[in-house]
Amino acid sequence: MLRNDYPGQVCSIAKSLEVVGERWSLLIVRDVMNGQRRFGELQRSLGVARNVLSARLQRLVEEDILERRAYQSGPERFEYFLTEKGLDLWPALVALQGWGDRHSTGPAGPPMLIVHKGCGGAVSDRGTCESCGEVLNARDAKALPGPGVGAEELAPALATAASSSDC
Amino acid sequence: MLRNDYPGQVCSIAKSLEVVGERWSLLIVRDVMNGQRRFGELQRSLGVARNVLSARLQRLVEEDILERRAYQSGPERFEYFLTEKGLDLWPALVALQGWGDRHSTGPAGPPMLIVHKGCGGAVSDRGTCESCGEVLNARDAKALPGPGVGAEELAPALATAASSSDC
Repeated sequence: MLRNDYPGQVCSIAKSLEVVGERWSLLIVRDVMNGQRRFGELQRSLGVARNVLSARLQRLVEEDILERRAYQSGPERFEYFLTEKGLDLWPALVALQGWGDRHSTGPAGPPMLIVHKGCGGAVSDRGTCESCGEVLNARDAKALPGPGVGAEELAPALATAASSSDC
Repeated sequence: MLRNDYPGQVCSIAKSLEVVGERWSLLIVRDVMNGQRRFGELQRSLGVARNVLSARLQRLVEEDILERRAYQSGPERFEYFLTEKGLDLWPALVALQGWGDRHSTGPAGPPMLIVHKGCGGAVSDRGTCESCGEVLNARDAKALPGPGVGAEELAPALATAASSSDC
C-alpha cells in the first residue's frame, strides 16, 4: 500500500487515488455518469474481465461512490447509480477529459463535448460554463458527440448522451 | 489494453488514463510539482520499488509529461521537471485533492492548502482563486500545510511548499 511519509504534501490526492487511482474505477464512474448502469453494459463498454469488473464495482459500492438498486428479481439484477460522493468526481473527470482533449486529440477534434444543460454552453476543463460562466456540477451537464466522432459512431454516442440526463 | 468500443463516450478520459491512470504516475507528477525532482527524493516520498519508479519516470518522459536534466556527471544524475503538458495536469490534481479533502479528510481539516501566489487566496477544486476569482494554472499556485498537518510535520511540508515555487 501507499506509504505516507510526507503527510504534509498534498495527501488528499493520495487518498483519492487510494480509492479511484486505477483506470477501471474512474472509467466505471464515467460510464455510470453517462447512463450505463448494468453489469453487462459496463462489461461491454470497458472490455474488462468480469471478475475484475465485479471486484471494482463492489469496491466502489463499499466506498460509497456507487449504490446498487435491484431492477429485477429471480434472478436478482442490479443497476448502479452514483452517490453524491460519486457525482463529486465530475470535476476530476472533466479535468482529465480536458487534458486528453488538449494533448491526445486527433485533427478531427475531441470525440465528446460536455455542454451546460441550462444554456447549451460548452463546459471548460474547470467544469464551468464557457457561455454563462456558471460553476457546474455533474447534474448540470450532459455529453454530446464531438467533431472527432465518426458518423457511424453517432448513434451509440447520442444514446449515451440522452441517457446521461438521468444522472 | 483498453478497448475502445464506445469512442463516442468521453474517450479523452480513457486516453488520459492510458497515460496517467495509475496511482504512481499521478503521485510522481504531484511530487515533481511540489519540487521533489530527484530519483532518491521521489523514491523516499512514494515508497515505491525502484524498478517501478524507474519505469514510471521513463514512461512519463516518453509521454512528454516530464523532462530530465542532468545536474551531475560521473556518475550522471538527473532531475525531473514538468513539461507544459505535465503542468497541464494541475487542474486534474487539484480536483482530485478537492474530492479527497471533501470526502476523506479527518476532523482536523485538510493536510494541505493550495493558495494563489498572486493574492494569497485559497484555490478551489476548480483551480480558481476563491478570493480574486482568477482562473489559475500550476505556476500561479503554491502548496502550504493545512490544519490537518501536525506540528511535527510542518517542517518538511513547508520545505515542500517553498520549493514548489520552482515549478
